[in-house]
Amino acid sequence: MPELRYNVITREWVVIATERAKRPDQFKRKEEKKPLPAHDPKCPFCPGNEAMTPPATFTIPDDGKWQVRVTRNKFAALSYEGERTRTLQGIRRTVTGVGIHEVIVETPAHNVDMAQLSDRDVELIVQTYLNRFKAASSDSRVEQVTIFKNHGDAAGTSLEHPHSQLIATPIITSQLRERLSNALTHFDEFGECIFCRVLKLELQEGVRVFLETEHFVALVPFAAFTPFSFLIFPRRHMPCIAEMTDAEAADLARALRRTLAKLYHGLSDPDFNYVIRTAPLEYYGVKYYHWYVSVIPRLTKMAGFELGSGMFINVSLPEENAAFLRDVKVD
Amino acid sequence: MPELRYNVITREWVVIATERAKRPDQFKRKEEKKPLPAHDPKCPFCPGNEAMTPPATFTIPDDGKWQVRVTRNKFAALSYEGERTRTLQGIRRTVTGVGIHEVIVETPAHNVDMAQLSDRDVELIVQTYLNRFKAASSDSRVEQVTIFKNHGDAAGTSLEHPHSQLIATPIITSQLRERLSNALTHFDEFGECIFCRVLKLELQEGVRVFLETEHFVALVPFAAFTPFSFLIFPRRHMPCIAEMTDAEAADLARALRRTLAKLYHGLSDPDFNYVIRTAPLEYYGVKYYHWYVSVIPRLTKMAGFELGSGMFINVSLPEENAAFLRDVKVD
Repeated sequence: MPELRYNVITREWVVIATERAKRPDQFKRKEEKKPLPAHDPKCPFCPGNEAMTPPATFTIPDDGKWQVRVTRNKFAALSYEGERTRTLQGIRRTVTGVGIHEVIVETPAHNVDMAQLSDRDVELIVQTYLNRFKAASSDSRVEQVTIFKNHGDAAGTSLEHPHSQLIATPIITSQLRERLSNALTHFDEFGECIFCRVLKLELQEGVRVFLETEHFVALVPFAAFTPFSFLIFPRRHMPCIAEMTDAEAADLARALRRTLAKLYHGLSDPDFNYVIRTAPLEYYGVKYYHWYVSVIPRLTKMAGFELGSGMFINVSLPEENAAFLRDVKVD
Repeated sequence: MPELRYNVITREWVVIATERAKRPDQFKRKEEKKPLPAHDPKCPFCPGNEAMTPPATFTIPDDGKWQVRVTRNKFAALSYEGERTRTLQGIRRTVTGVGIHEVIVETPAHNVDMAQLSDRDVELIVQTYLNRFKAASSDSRVEQVTIFKNHGDAAGTSLEHPHSQLIATPIITSQLRERLSNALTHFDEFGECIFCRVLKLELQEGVRVFLETEHFVALVPFAAFTPFSFLIFPRRHMPCIAEMTDAEAADLARALRRTLAKLYHGLSDPDFNYVIRTAPLEYYGVKYYHWYVSVIPRLTKMAGFELGSGMFINVSLPEENAAFLRDVKVD
């Protein structure tokens, strides 16, 4: 019998379609990926081609040869110039499309993704995220900062060179507004952070947790909306990523690298997105929200039912996904 | 300068990325689609192969050779058997996965999609939708009925033979719940149906309307979330599709066929989904909700930003999309 499960964080129901469920290894990539060169002379993100992109806004190290390099997105979705102006006319509401859209080149190597980098390399990427999150948050036109990564065709990337992006918008999206509001309602009713509660329960039950580090826990959620979607939660209550200590940032790098390596080896380098779901900087310290990383392998397609109802049909079992990922050995 | 536009129905912001915007004809399908045979001996939906699917639950005509045929989905996401049982345990909530999942085979021809059918043929499909909507709504375990179509690979279909689907769930999805609640709030504040208001304004402004029939209006919404997404609204206020008269159903068939033919000829048969966004039958007659058809061509991919923020970046202009579709001649 299929089961509907409720996600207490998003307040959405998911169908766990047991009758249609596939075995974990049926989600493995079938066709071989074509190997990439270590350096591509035409790639705007490869060393030596820096003139093909706007000037760097941040690099590590900040002199000489960079390991991580940030630039404005050449085809930015939002404009760096101009004022944030809101127009209201009857039921029409618009805001000028100002904000920030940066590209974070994660490594000089064209063909080495996060699963193959060292912990230290990934730590530099996490430090870059923190730097750029704070920089974008200090722009008075900005209300929300989203850091994300698209890996592979199905995840919507057009450039192969490993990179992440940051988009800072002049409004709070309705999705974040609702999650903040739902979390606040839960806090008011029960006197607890709903995320801390979920994390505690998942650690007790154990069946959906597949990796633990000193400061982070990776788990497939009870009501995972797609196969192998997983979350990386900080153990300590923190609404905003900017609250991480250096030790936590280093440990996030370990958790991120190892979970992505499990995905890479377990499912043969699937396409995926990840996104850091954090409260804006001004929510620093609130008791009811809790940031986390959401990783979404793109193994199935969103079809009319999902688009039309907002409800997903997951053709895999979260507990089986977690057991499968737990068993993939990585260093 | 890009512009953020607010969708008053979904309460979501969309970036209209003018700097990245493509011309309408850049969205045309590039590669040729392989032509399909009129009859495929291996296709479970082709006439003569009825034994490959569960027995028909409804056909038109109901004797002899069918023109439209409905069966249970062989790989149903929900179970026809069993009771709806809700389990609450701490923060865990589940409901047994009972409900209805039907396949509506739209035509005996393997290779003739809605854009090529006659008005009368499409009318039979619309009548089938109404019959199955009412039948599913009469099941006491059902709270919400979603009728949708997936056309093409990118839209998540696995079978080429033209078909739609119906999924009836034992819960109301959070997306519908929120839209009902938002619409009610607007009604309480302003004493009007927000959908009627939007329709009236669009008809006044005219720039996003691209097809009008006696009872329906097709338009690209002001805050369209993806290129060429459009809506087909009944002119008359009706929360639920079951309220349509026969004349309106016949006219919806005309509007649906002609808008899909514009899409087919204008963009070279793009993959698309459509979904009927209706209130459940028990909302029959409420003053604040209004059903409509939402058509979503799958011309771009959902990437990390969209998944992570719930906000879409539309790389086209709704007004240009509408002008383009208006100019595509169909009979």
